[in-house]
Amino acid sequence: MASIFTKIIQGEIFCHKIAEDDRYFAFLDINPLAKGHTLVIPKQEVDYIFDLDDEDLNGLHLFAKKVAKAVEKSVECKRIGIAVIGLEVPHTHIHLVPLNRIGDLNFANPKLDLSAEELAEIASTIRKNLE
Amino acid sequence: MASIFTKIIQGEIFCHKIAEDDRYFAFLDINPLAKGHTLVIPKQEVDYIFDLDDEDLNGLHLFAKKVAKAVEKSVECKRIGIAVIGLEVPHTHIHLVPLNRIGDLNFANPKLDLSAEELAEIASTIRKNLE
Repeated sequence: MASIFTKIIQGEIFCHKIAEDDRYFAFLDINPLAKGHTLVIPKQEVDYIFDLDDEDLNGLHLFAKKVAKAVEKSVECKRIGIAVIGLEVPHTHIHLVPLNRIGDLNFANPKLDLSAEELAEIASTIRKNLE
Repeated sequence: MASIFTKIIQGEIFCHKIAEDDRYFAFLDINPLAKGHTLVIPKQEVDYIFDLDDEDLNGLHLFAKKVAKAVEKSVECKRIGIAVIGLEVPHTHIHLVPLNRIGDLNFANPKLDLSAEELAEIASTIRKNLE
């Protein structure tokens, strides 16, 4: 069965899309730790990031770098943190989380309750800031 | 002034070294979230991971992948998580953290109090598991 992320890529499940190329996809986390919290995924449905071959792993990280630079310009933050956990959805995903304090990269923190309008506006700003 | 990580690379500060090549270095985190928690750094003293150029960023992630596969073989875990925060030491570092539960990648969790002997033994096991 297709992972929830594959359904997002295919447009069966709505997302606030940030960027896409032939191999990678980025969209806003719907339960963000911070404004601009973005997920970056390979289109290829590989569960574990370290099972990606070297070329795909590099491509994913370079795509994430490009997205991170745009997120950084779009929200108030000191820098963009990275987290990869992967114990819930079996489809590799990199969390890009805008950080202001060390404790901001903590998935036990309460998630922000942003409206669809707010998310759409953040996504639009990030897309504009993509080179 | 040299960062604490540069001092570690240069051998001025002791560490439990895992791996080294001409550009990258890996060693055990002295305040680990889990047994096998490892830091992977570029030798180049760059504060922010997304300021690394593409080649250096790729090299760092491929080096981290190799180390992660060895850590995974060395300790009880479901997989290796990744975190990059970088608000404390101004020298890019990737945390590789063995995970069993989602909550394991939480820097607010109490750190393990491992003896120097235990850390040395873990480091030795990981080094043996490096291809």
